[in-house]
Amino acid sequence: MKFKLILSFLLLAPCFVAFSQENQSVKSEKQGIAVADKGLIKISVMYPFAEGKTFNMEYYETKHMPMVAGYLGANLVKYTIEKGLSSGIPNQPLPFLAIGTFYVKSLSEYQAAVAPNRDAIRADFANYTNVVPVILVSEVVK
Amino acid sequence: MKFKLILSFLLLAPCFVAFSQENQSVKSEKQGIAVADKGLIKISVMYPFAEGKTFNMEYYETKHMPMVAGYLGANLVKYTIEKGLSSGIPNQPLPFLAIGTFYVKSLSEYQAAVAPNRDAIRADFANYTNVVPVILVSEVVK
Repeated sequence: MKFKLILSFLLLAPCFVAFSQENQSVKSEKQGIAVADKGLIKISVMYPFAEGKTFNMEYYETKHMPMVAGYLGANLVKYTIEKGLSSGIPNQPLPFLAIGTFYVKSLSEYQAAVAPNRDAIRADFANYTNVVPVILVSEVVK
Repeated sequence: MKFKLILSFLLLAPCFVAFSQENQSVKSEKQGIAVADKGLIKISVMYPFAEGKTFNMEYYETKHMPMVAGYLGANLVKYTIEKGLSSGIPNQPLPFLAIGTFYVKSLSEYQAAVAPNRDAIRADFANYTNVVPVILVSEVVK
């Protein structure tokens, strides 16, 4: 009788652990916390708006970004794309048409992956934009 | 005997569910997929670098951003902070000292939340920077 009780408890113990772990994951997802981002290196490719400048978001999203992401391998944690809508300051022009970012674990690995492909990447710009981008390397604080 | 078997199975069934749910959450977190971001509105407050410009990241992270986040309520999905390290283009100056972003569900709700607090937000700038920020409103594509 006592043995069966202990056995049942041992069988159920991992389940309690699973429940508590699941709740933590669900909770952090619901809070929108990307717990893996802090400390990562982020490369932001930012396309400034100006009169006469164009940007093909469909090509950028379906062709260009996946191509560059493919060069980066496992060092790439994720990439993001945003489409500029307006300035947040009244009467100011749109600052950027679009921004694409890469979150990587190692900056030197990123640079090593990009270097042999730099010409291909630059040549592909003409397929979606006539803007010369600004590129920011930053560290994710939060 | 059969009853005890069925009872044990019923007790363990939720545990299998918990295990499978936990794996899915852990998997999507490990993939770094922020499944909730696409379609959100993003407000990026970007502090350009220039000679003589300063930025106090500790105050920004511990005081200013939480203060503004507090004004935004449930409309705010998450906020992020990054610290500028360098340009990604050789021999180009650092584009931005720092960028703080807010991911919200509704732009109009964001604007309505900020409007009565605009003076307080602007007054707080002096506590961490002498840079006038650029503000971008964008839509998250990916």
